[in-house]
Amino acid sequence: MSKVQLPFGMQDYLPDDCYNKTTAENAICGIFSSYGYKKVSTPALEYSDLFTSGSMMSEKRLFKLTDTDGSLLAMRADVTMQICRMYVTSMTGVQRMYYALDSYEFLDDSNSARDREFAQTGVELMGDTGEEGELEVLEMAADALLASGLKNFTVELGHVGYFDGLAEDLGISESAAAKLKRLINKKDMLGAELFFRDSGLSNASRESILSLTSLFGGREILDKAEKLCSGKKSAAALEKLGRLLGKLENMGLGRYFSIDLGMVSANNYYTGIVMKGLCEDIGVSILDGGRYDQLCARWGSPTRAIGFAIGTRRLLAALRAQGKREKAPKADIAFAVTDCDEMTVRSVIGKLRKKNTVVRVFGGEDELIAYCRAKGINRALLFDGAPIELTISGKGGKI
Amino acid sequence: MSKVQLPFGMQDYLPDDCYNKTTAENAICGIFSSYGYKKVSTPALEYSDLFTSGSMMSEKRLFKLTDTDGSLLAMRADVTMQICRMYVTSMTGVQRMYYALDSYEFLDDSNSARDREFAQTGVELMGDTGEEGELEVLEMAADALLASGLKNFTVELGHVGYFDGLAEDLGISESAAAKLKRLINKKDMLGAELFFRDSGLSNASRESILSLTSLFGGREILDKAEKLCSGKKSAAALEKLGRLLGKLENMGLGRYFSIDLGMVSANNYYTGIVMKGLCEDIGVSILDGGRYDQLCARWGSPTRAIGFAIGTRRLLAALRAQGKREKAPKADIAFAVTDCDEMTVRSVIGKLRKKNTVVRVFGGEDELIAYCRAKGINRALLFDGAPIELTISGKGGKI
Repeated sequence: MSKVQLPFGMQDYLPDDCYNKTTAENAICGIFSSYGYKKVSTPALEYSDLFTSGSMMSEKRLFKLTDTDGSLLAMRADVTMQICRMYVTSMTGVQRMYYALDSYEFLDDSNSARDREFAQTGVELMGDTGEEGELEVLEMAADALLASGLKNFTVELGHVGYFDGLAEDLGISESAAAKLKRLINKKDMLGAELFFRDSGLSNASRESILSLTSLFGGREILDKAEKLCSGKKSAAALEKLGRLLGKLENMGLGRYFSIDLGMVSANNYYTGIVMKGLCEDIGVSILDGGRYDQLCARWGSPTRAIGFAIGTRRLLAALRAQGKREKAPKADIAFAVTDCDEMTVRSVIGKLRKKNTVVRVFGGEDELIAYCRAKGINRALLFDGAPIELTISGKGGKI
Repeated sequence: MSKVQLPFGMQDYLPDDCYNKTTAENAICGIFSSYGYKKVSTPALEYSDLFTSGSMMSEKRLFKLTDTDGSLLAMRADVTMQICRMYVTSMTGVQRMYYALDSYEFLDDSNSARDREFAQTGVELMGDTGEEGELEVLEMAADALLASGLKNFTVELGHVGYFDGLAEDLGISESAAAKLKRLINKKDMLGAELFFRDSGLSNASRESILSLTSLFGGREILDKAEKLCSGKKSAAALEKLGRLLGKLENMGLGRYFSIDLGMVSANNYYTGIVMKGLCEDIGVSILDGGRYDQLCARWGSPTRAIGFAIGTRRLLAALRAQGKREKAPKADIAFAVTDCDEMTVRSVIGKLRKKNTVVRVFGGEDELIAYCRAKGINRALLFDGAPIELTISGKGGKI
């Protein structure tokens, strides 16, 4: 007998789950579309090189396959890299795109709570759009989460330039800084301690770096951070964040945004502002994004760009925690046919289906009534010679 | 520098393609939903056993990967088998489901015109629904193709029982019949000739089998077929097809259906009626389906079932051949900001976005006007102190 299990980290969406997923995706994509973004789609298989070149992603994180000609393929691991590939091959200028696609992460710990297939609904704003582009994307992030029905969320803003400037000022080498970045990003304080023990850095430098992890909160954090590091690169990053936060506050969106300078880079390819959407009802980020100005340069077509993705399943978990989970809607009308010509049935039901969900019950009057009661459907049509409308009350029978 | 190529048989959907795909899928899924079908989704990776056990599919056709524990995984190769797995683990009784998902076929001929990733929009009607269920699915197939905007299509109906009965009557062994079935299904006449040369069958038997491939057309084919084989199994199959065709004609759908007894089985798991949607504008089937009453029995839960899938990309090719290809819609309104507080911009644009697609132009009045002219957008708003509505005419300037 065949197994009925799924590989770990893989899940079905049964009708109710799928309904909630589709509803959330449609609400989010509706916002993207209203901003003039256009939907695109990429294949689930690429040459693995797309994801790994330039150390963008570890090969270990990929689901890999060998193609017929021996080349190494990988399942979609990051849509942003695919859209950059698409952009450099087919587009120029400012382009707004969105997607709702599944990505794949090869995890080898079957006890991990992480999904190995994860749906993302995201946007990419490609081209030279500057700070106005950043604002558009941030405004859209708030609008998209609001449209999904989510409450109590915060989009934290950081900037990779602040850490980079700090590391430069402290004389930390680029490779050591990259290592440290990963540790701080994971808030791996033990790892950071071990790093410092071997680094030969002064205690003061160590304190500066470690204090990063507490640099989150409102606008006041920017002043605190300025005192910590006043180098040119760090100062420019803080100024950028201050301006963005100010403009978001002017839009009336201040309550949805905060600062987190400990979020040094969620992803190797970010080069400017980074963002992470959090919600108190769930312990993982539901939105990740940032500016990635270097990614298209891999193909010799440097292009400024910024984007984010919402983790659909995580968003659904947060919505569920907030009591926002619905059942897939029941049919509006049920019908059964005991004796009627096919043309009459099709013509009557066809008209109803233009505005209603109309489901057939296979059986006669008794089955129809039983079905409507079980499902809470109030309108029933029995085709017995001609269509007869039955009224289904809670307990009574046909009226 | 990274490759920009995609593995063969894989394609992007750029904005216009994606718009046409989404439009067609939404139209089709709207029909499914109006019949009371509920959307489900399955993961892209399964244990490969799901697809191969019982010789349902050749392992060669799968994109395979080895999981961390050594088990063999395969990319989604057939949604119907996944939905059967879902049904036996989570559902009972009559269940109506639909999906819009990509499947994968491992082809090793890089010159093949076939896709290795193919989107399908399909339905499964699970449970004991008998002939009324078959009719519902056939009616829905016609309605779905009509809703997509397709013209000049035919859904050909066959029945695996007719061939099986004929083969039994001629004393052809089950394994030889299976081989023959594949040849006839591919209309591989050379292969069939070779088969007969080695089979020891009489010339009359050979003629009977080969005449199957010409048994397509209207209702008259059923009479012709009855003369060829009057065994019980074959007669039951012909009766079934005759009744279905009659009822579809009564519904006014006769012109969309025909008979093809040479279509012996598009898929190993079909056990009753089979269907194939064809359109004169494209040389491949755009819809495939049939009854599969034995698939759930693999898990010890025999369940009658019937379904079909529309090949989305093939449908789009047929629609394109019929002149039905649109560009992704342009924005309704464009705006630019030269000098205005963020709150005013957000409030004015936010209201417009509730019913319109509103795109920002990064720049001033000149860029805004140039953009609107280039894109054919008639409504432009310039925020210069306050919002000013510009009228964009074909050649003139601002009015």
